[in-house]
Amino acid sequence: MTSELDQSAALLARTPAALDALLRDLPEAWTQSNEGENTWSAAGVVAHLIHCERADWIPRLRRILESGETRAFDPFDRFGSQRESREKSLARLLDEFARLRAANLEELRRLNLSAEDLGRRGLHPSLGTVTLSQLLATWAAHDLTHLHQISRVMAHQYREAVGPWSQYLGVLRCDGHSSP
Amino acid sequence: MTSELDQSAALLARTPAALDALLRDLPEAWTQSNEGENTWSAAGVVAHLIHCERADWIPRLRRILESGETRAFDPFDRFGSQRESREKSLARLLDEFARLRAANLEELRRLNLSAEDLGRRGLHPSLGTVTLSQLLATWAAHDLTHLHQISRVMAHQYREAVGPWSQYLGVLRCDGHSSP
Repeated sequence: MTSELDQSAALLARTPAALDALLRDLPEAWTQSNEGENTWSAAGVVAHLIHCERADWIPRLRRILESGETRAFDPFDRFGSQRESREKSLARLLDEFARLRAANLEELRRLNLSAEDLGRRGLHPSLGTVTLSQLLATWAAHDLTHLHQISRVMAHQYREAVGPWSQYLGVLRCDGHSSP
Repeated sequence: MTSELDQSAALLARTPAALDALLRDLPEAWTQSNEGENTWSAAGVVAHLIHCERADWIPRLRRILESGETRAFDPFDRFGSQRESREKSLARLLDEFARLRAANLEELRRLNLSAEDLGRRGLHPSLGTVTLSQLLATWAAHDLTHLHQISRVMAHQYREAVGPWSQYLGVLRCDGHSSP
């Protein structure tokens, strides 16, 4: 693998354990609370990450390798995961995310992508031409955007409890640009 | 402990392991890079969290219990940690944060705070009157503000690599309201 790919894979491999360490067995006041109507809880975000492992990253990567720009990615339903999050326990969601991520990283290794492969182009239904390299970087950055969201959603639960300290806590001024 | 205290302690107990799972042995391109001059890397944030464990939370909690509003908290140097972050490896910083946090949570348990204690008042040098309850909530929310910051600082390293996907990644639009 190239160093670019190594760097992304190193982060992708750690996210499930990081979320597990943060969220497993944490009181539901932290994990099941959201920022208001039509927003996601921390558990809802984990359900979304599972949905992406199934329907987004590897299927799109394969589409680029198989069809290049001749066939666009299938559209992705960003809200397709929210029923699942209501029906499964957070512990089960965390297990499932870890299992799917490990399998997808194994699949990524098996593909043994070359520097040339990273430059291959695909067609995003809204964004137009993208490269395989951009897709891999987005997979990693997407973990970070949702870690950013989870920390914001959880902090939101303490916006009153911190009293006057709220002005020092930047996360409480984050305006939800990474909401679903 | 009250349920309010339990909720905060549950999060406080998990943060070191979550940061360890995310950051240990991750390539330095993720952990040592910042957002530009006078901003912090992920490693720098861990150094700041260590500094707070030593100089902020428990000392201020004791000050409230001992002196109430008659003696303000000592001022806290938010930048006092950054030399330490340059001199110690990230692995060592993560070990130190975990050790100090565990010791501080043990101290918190020993104090055996009552609901009445949570309402006690102290004097912040800038914010004025605060309660012990607000201080404890801020300790937990402060972990989240820095988890929020770490995810943003790391995502910043991929702002070009993701290409046109940047418009879908909310973390890349976060304007650094939780910078030091």
